[in-house]
Amino acid sequence: MTKNIAVVLAGCGVYDGAEIHEATLTMLAIARNGARYQVFAPDVEQAHVVNHLTGKVTNEKRNVLVEAARIARGNINPLSKYKADDFDALVFPGGFGVAKNLCSFAFEGPACNVNPEVENAIRETAKLGKPIGALCISPVILAKVLGNIEITIGQDRGTASAIEKLGATHTPTTHGEIVIDKAHKIVTTPCYMLDATIDQIADGAENLIAALIKMA
Amino acid sequence: MTKNIAVVLAGCGVYDGAEIHEATLTMLAIARNGARYQVFAPDVEQAHVVNHLTGKVTNEKRNVLVEAARIARGNINPLSKYKADDFDALVFPGGFGVAKNLCSFAFEGPACNVNPEVENAIRETAKLGKPIGALCISPVILAKVLGNIEITIGQDRGTASAIEKLGATHTPTTHGEIVIDKAHKIVTTPCYMLDATIDQIADGAENLIAALIKMA
Repeated sequence: MTKNIAVVLAGCGVYDGAEIHEATLTMLAIARNGARYQVFAPDVEQAHVVNHLTGKVTNEKRNVLVEAARIARGNINPLSKYKADDFDALVFPGGFGVAKNLCSFAFEGPACNVNPEVENAIRETAKLGKPIGALCISPVILAKVLGNIEITIGQDRGTASAIEKLGATHTPTTHGEIVIDKAHKIVTTPCYMLDATIDQIADGAENLIAALIKMA
Repeated sequence: MTKNIAVVLAGCGVYDGAEIHEATLTMLAIARNGARYQVFAPDVEQAHVVNHLTGKVTNEKRNVLVEAARIARGNINPLSKYKADDFDALVFPGGFGVAKNLCSFAFEGPACNVNPEVENAIRETAKLGKPIGALCISPVILAKVLGNIEITIGQDRGTASAIEKLGATHTPTTHGEIVIDKAHKIVTTPCYMLDATIDQIADGAENLIAALIKMA
């Protein structure tokens, strides 16, 4: 049986959406592991739009689902349609959009809110004992929703400390490394939470997806 | 000596910009071949903006350089700064943006205009005898600028016929295959000009970049 993996995106672009390399290389890793994927995103307005040339916030308004559709080549579903029953695993690539659009961690830290559809997707998947993967900053959402889990976001002390406040355990890692929480079936990897090159992102995504599929 | 490859993007998103998987996987292939890259894009308004969820043209205005910066994580230069002297090879990932923003082929076919900075980049690189790679629909720009070259865009008869009208020779190919014009140092591969999966795009990008670096 071909494994079917749901990929949740937070927009399109590192500073206000999904990190494009992490999203693309997650999808590639799924395909190269002989599995298939369906992309999802919440149908909500982005927290803001960042000009990626200047790094400055603009006056534009963009929708997370509509922008994430760029990475998915139009083949995307609203996250409201996600059913954990239909998939073998759930994975969250990173990007600031995860901490801005999927939850408010970028603005409020550990006291953040999580988008209700994102929270439901995580809870339903965990309840069925199916594995969940998270790259880059995405593990903070899993910590916020699931609490006492073992994860990594790399080396950043501030984020690691916020994770510990949420009741999770943080293990420092470097390029391409993954942390597996076997009890909770959670796999995490730091990717661009480190100062990384694109081939190191590919390594992390490949290692994470291979471990995820093994548990699925 | 580490080879240095210039990557020219046409925006961010298959329907109005650079195809994101082709762009990302070109950059990955360069890194995995031990080379480095610098991303460029022309500082011009997009021909139009397409909502990638609905496929419909919207009323928005977006800039090719600003949107391409999303794929480049902000590390991008305006194409006006490109100097063929500074690079070992030049490569164009695909996407409709190539035929809409870098030239007008999507609207005018073989009678299209080419963005002057794109034309200069191609001419200067060819004049120095340095190799040029093109994925997906991008080979049409090379045909328009350079004329009598041997290229592939896969299997599409209409596009192949337009290429022949431009004085170039078209060789049909399938997934992951490349066509090498040794005399003119041109390497091309069809990617999403075929109904392809993301791992087939990675194969095409890897084969093209390996051949390009060998000639550089």
